[in-house]
Amino acid sequence: MASSHTTHMLKPQRYWYTFGPNTPALTIQPGDTIIACTRDARGLDEEMRPLPVEMKQQSDDTLYRESNPLCGPIYVIGAEVGDTLVVNIHRIRLNRSYAWSRFMPRFGSFTGEGPGRTLLLNQPLEERLFDWHLDLEKMTATLDLPQSRLGRAEIPLRPFLGSIGVAPRFGRVEMSLSPGEYGGNMDYREVTENTTLYLPVWVKGAYLAFGDVHAAQGDGEICGVALETTAEVTLEIGLEKGKTISWPRLDDGQHLAAIGSTRPLEDCARLAHLELLDWLESDYGFDRWEAFQLMSQVGSMHVANMVDPNYTVAARFPKRYLP
Amino acid sequence: MASSHTTHMLKPQRYWYTFGPNTPALTIQPGDTIIACTRDARGLDEEMRPLPVEMKQQSDDTLYRESNPLCGPIYVIGAEVGDTLVVNIHRIRLNRSYAWSRFMPRFGSFTGEGPGRTLLLNQPLEERLFDWHLDLEKMTATLDLPQSRLGRAEIPLRPFLGSIGVAPRFGRVEMSLSPGEYGGNMDYREVTENTTLYLPVWVKGAYLAFGDVHAAQGDGEICGVALETTAEVTLEIGLEKGKTISWPRLDDGQHLAAIGSTRPLEDCARLAHLELLDWLESDYGFDRWEAFQLMSQVGSMHVANMVDPNYTVAARFPKRYLP
Amino acid sequence: MASSHTTHMLKPQRYWYTFGPNTPALTIQPGDTIIACTRDARGLDEEMRPLPVEMKQQSDDTLYRESNPLCGPIYVIGAEVGDTLVVNIHRIRLNRSYAWSRFMPRFGSFTGEGPGRTLLLNQPLEERLFDWHLDLEKMTATLDLPQSRLGRAEIPLRPFLGSIGVAPRFGRVEMSLSPGEYGGNMDYREVTENTTLYLPVWVKGAYLAFGDVHAAQGDGEICGVALETTAEVTLEIGLEKGKTISWPRLDDGQHLAAIGSTRPLEDCARLAHLELLDWLESDYGFDRWEAFQLMSQVGSMHVANMVDPNYTVAARFPKRYLP
Amino acid sequence: MASSHTTHMLKPQRYWYTFGPNTPALTIQPGDTIIACTRDARGLDEEMRPLPVEMKQQSDDTLYRESNPLCGPIYVIGAEVGDTLVVNIHRIRLNRSYAWSRFMPRFGSFTGEGPGRTLLLNQPLEERLFDWHLDLEKMTATLDLPQSRLGRAEIPLRPFLGSIGVAPRFGRVEMSLSPGEYGGNMDYREVTENTTLYLPVWVKGAYLAFGDVHAAQGDGEICGVALETTAEVTLEIGLEKGKTISWPRLDDGQHLAAIGSTRPLEDCARLAHLELLDWLESDYGFDRWEAFQLMSQVGSMHVANMVDPNYTVAARFPKRYLP
Repeated sequence: MASSHTTHMLKPQRYWYTFGPNTPALTIQPGDTIIACTRDARGLDEEMRPLPVEMKQQSDDTLYRESNPLCGPIYVIGAEVGDTLVVNIHRIRLNRSYAWSRFMPRFGSFTGEGPGRTLLLNQPLEERLFDWHLDLEKMTATLDLPQSRLGRAEIPLRPFLGSIGVAPRFGRVEMSLSPGEYGGNMDYREVTENTTLYLPVWVKGAYLAFGDVHAAQGDGEICGVALETTAEVTLEIGLEKGKTISWPRLDDGQHLAAIGSTRPLEDCARLAHLELLDWLESDYGFDRWEAFQLMSQVGSMHVANMVDPNYTVAARFPKRYLP
Repeated sequence: MASSHTTHMLKPQRYWYTFGPNTPALTIQPGDTIIACTRDARGLDEEMRPLPVEMKQQSDDTLYRESNPLCGPIYVIGAEVGDTLVVNIHRIRLNRSYAWSRFMPRFGSFTGEGPGRTLLLNQPLEERLFDWHLDLEKMTATLDLPQSRLGRAEIPLRPFLGSIGVAPRFGRVEMSLSPGEYGGNMDYREVTENTTLYLPVWVKGAYLAFGDVHAAQGDGEICGVALETTAEVTLEIGLEKGKTISWPRLDDGQHLAAIGSTRPLEDCARLAHLELLDWLESDYGFDRWEAFQLMSQVGSMHVANMVDPNYTVAARFPKRYLP
Repeated sequence: MASSHTTHMLKPQRYWYTFGPNTPALTIQPGDTIIACTRDARGLDEEMRPLPVEMKQQSDDTLYRESNPLCGPIYVIGAEVGDTLVVNIHRIRLNRSYAWSRFMPRFGSFTGEGPGRTLLLNQPLEERLFDWHLDLEKMTATLDLPQSRLGRAEIPLRPFLGSIGVAPRFGRVEMSLSPGEYGGNMDYREVTENTTLYLPVWVKGAYLAFGDVHAAQGDGEICGVALETTAEVTLEIGLEKGKTISWPRLDDGQHLAAIGSTRPLEDCARLAHLELLDWLESDYGFDRWEAFQLMSQVGSMHVANMVDPNYTVAARFPKRYLP
Repeated sequence: MASSHTTHMLKPQRYWYTFGPNTPALTIQPGDTIIACTRDARGLDEEMRPLPVEMKQQSDDTLYRESNPLCGPIYVIGAEVGDTLVVNIHRIRLNRSYAWSRFMPRFGSFTGEGPGRTLLLNQPLEERLFDWHLDLEKMTATLDLPQSRLGRAEIPLRPFLGSIGVAPRFGRVEMSLSPGEYGGNMDYREVTENTTLYLPVWVKGAYLAFGDVHAAQGDGEICGVALETTAEVTLEIGLEKGKTISWPRLDDGQHLAAIGSTRPLEDCARLAHLELLDWLESDYGFDRWEAFQLMSQVGSMHVANMVDPNYTVAARFPKRYLP
């Protein structure tokens, strides 16, 4: 970070449930850094205090789903339609020794829900809460499994941002539960420390927002809920003027990844691979068809989430094959 | 219509490309009637004049797809979240002797597009415009087919509203190309004269908007474009307070139809049938499982459109089996 | 029927649960007619007698699902790979005053089953049988609905062949529950009297088999089970040498229909429309793109079934637009 | 291997294009080992000699797609419906310094093909062959990329069996291109040396067949073709009597993986996770819901192939969390 850039400590006065051109919490210059504490998916903070009513996005005129409250939005000066926002994720410091997960009656990869309702005739899953204890020194989480022979599971922590995105194009203001070409609730476990996330700018100012930290999660987030917790997040925000991308991209140092979100799952994979192909062609001097052949043999794919209302897939290419 | 209700001649000062809580063109009381002239999907009016810049929804800050300009929105006094808007479609009077259809390079049921881009590696369709002549007395359309043995086709006209909807829930402002639980660009050819469309109210005031009249169209709108034209539309707007529905519903006198929009297509069908099941159960005294059996044997299904970004299916139940 | 053709009264000695090159029940010449009595989906005959063990396709070596027992197969002399079998459905005479339908715990359009198992974590539907009384003079069916205000439903009968197909290509022997490019369990309610069904010949001799008569059914067969009953079926079998088609086609006098079966549902629709396009182009002198435009405006679509393991869609074109 | 077990050197007299109860090439006892040389997907052997006509599965009566010729089938004495076949993959020794890959006009993850035909209106990909040179000492492959800045790619080899399976249930004989509950053309790159593959026995004798060795491949096999080559394969075959599974399972020493094949892709993922859940519950003393929670947080997913006619997904659970 150049010394001329500013570091902003963001203390949100309110949290939003939508990605979009909401009232900015902060206006920054490209190159600035933001540090903010996120709340968990139900709005609890690091001391398990709930979100006060006056800090919630709300309205008498419409209905908001109170899930995944977001820090921001951050207005980036100079960001215009057709630019690319560059988010360097420097730190996701967990600050609570507790994470919860749960089953919800009509949620998750197996319940066939559509937007706003179940697709099933039969009975929903039973509501159930799981309490994970986090050891922030050992960076592990433990869960009691009283009904199973194993008795208790201990797993490593790998915190990431479940939700991060900009205002959607066409003036859309999506709810915070839905991922799309603007990023959003991608629930992709590689959006972690020491990676760089590229987001297309659809609306002047970009309106970056983020939250929903997960302490750990499997591919697909199949029960619909990860280890939901809180963290202090440090992001350095850059801007590439005139660089146009169509879907979010991630560079983790080892891989280029392009991230597509839609339904069904194979269309996520198609979107992601075509974005990756564009990336290789435009930035790294690949012939399109040679890149397609090489990608077919060395590429990998991550199913980030497979939960309503859109699914997310990342297509990855190892950087060791870049010229 | 009771004599105390007002008939509004709506002359739009501007047209919107989004469903949402945009600045109302009109504020009405439940029971009022609206008469308005729609523009076609490219913004041309009944004399083929393009939409002037100052009449377009626009912004320097974001990007709008200039497709399907909408009349409205109409703010309905007293409409609140959880109510149902009742739209009686009294008349769709075609007022132009010309309709166009076309192929677009990356559009339609067979090109596998995702939101904003193609899903295909290979080459797009060739752009092509089709000129349909409308005979408004005979109510037929003719198209020359110079390369085919048939030479020329004459088909009957059956005008309907390709797009009609309210502001989406969660404050979402979707582009006018996308159908959803708020209605929108459903492209359902039964949304025609002498039917009643029920729309869930997601935002206070409802914000009804409409346009995109099609003179004729097949199931699925498979090439992505119907007989695009203009009409004078007469709608009487009612309100059912405290009546809550989840997806649009249509009563054509002969059938109850529930309309679901998502992807993949089978999930549209599931959404629609479950909404129809709720309707039969709550309004007509059916036991849920008996209704499911009867619906399985006498129901019908329409694929309204199968074009990006969401598909639409209607599930129908003949009214003759209502008690 | 020319006088030189033979009419065969087929009294099956056994019933098959698979489409494929099983031991022929009958060998015929093109032009011959077959009359046979089908059993219902559970193997019951017109007097409700179950299928004796010795009449079932069976083996100690493998497992058969005892559903949809089929009459045949019929070996058609001269039928070779690349020909088209022409099935004129002259009569489907119901011969039992009873039809059943049912809910099965993990079956139907809403239970998300995959081949051989459920896709759901949660609880299955409750098993339930529905008794429909058939009045073969009035051609109606009645069902008691004791829990519903309606009390009792009476619906018109419209018998059709739920299953009819040939041996699949590549030597495949599919179970009788699955539809495909060979026809099979399409459950398409337009495969009824006075229609002509065209089937591609994939295996020398064709090996036509049929059964699973439904007295009535809605689009999609959404609970997974129609009005299951028995009938005496009269089919006249023709052969078009050197005429090659890819998917089943149906001519009902008013429409040409092409029938695609796969998953997801939009791919059924795509298969069906492309087959229909081929038909218009090769047999009726249409230019491909002009046909695509016309079909988009006057075509209709039927969702025949939306039940595991493959779904079926018919794409239809009105014959009045043929040259 | 106990000393009483036999090692069979299988020199195929013919190769099959179908999984099913074809004439066995070999009859073995559980515990025996097989060593066989596979041919590549086009039938070429280690010296690039094509498959002679008399060694091909063929028939004047039906049509075979000459792709993925299989070694076997192997009849396993004592294997009965409801048992599990245990395949220990001891060695896949590449024996040719050349592998090819290619683009085919209507094949791969992006061309939207259905069984037997394309789903697209527009033009297919251009046919193209890629020559990969294999260095069997360094275990690398190189490909010239003359149109790209990189110029040439060198990638590590990791040979696996693209196709391995048993005869399908219900007497089905699928073509060798299709994966399913019997295994088959899963194209899963973890089916490699030092893993154990479990296959459900659907037909007495199991009828194991295999081939289609890939020297390397990315997730999803997105262009539809991997590094196609030949190898000498060593398999030790075991049998678990009375142990019933529904889909293939793989143990690589570090993970349990369950493998589901169907369409759309999310249903593959559902099938795989439910099979994995059954595995954890029945073999390792997990409570179903506790296993579901733990699996959601530590599981991973592989998209094995996303190519017509069925897609394949593996759901994986780390063995370190087993009791």
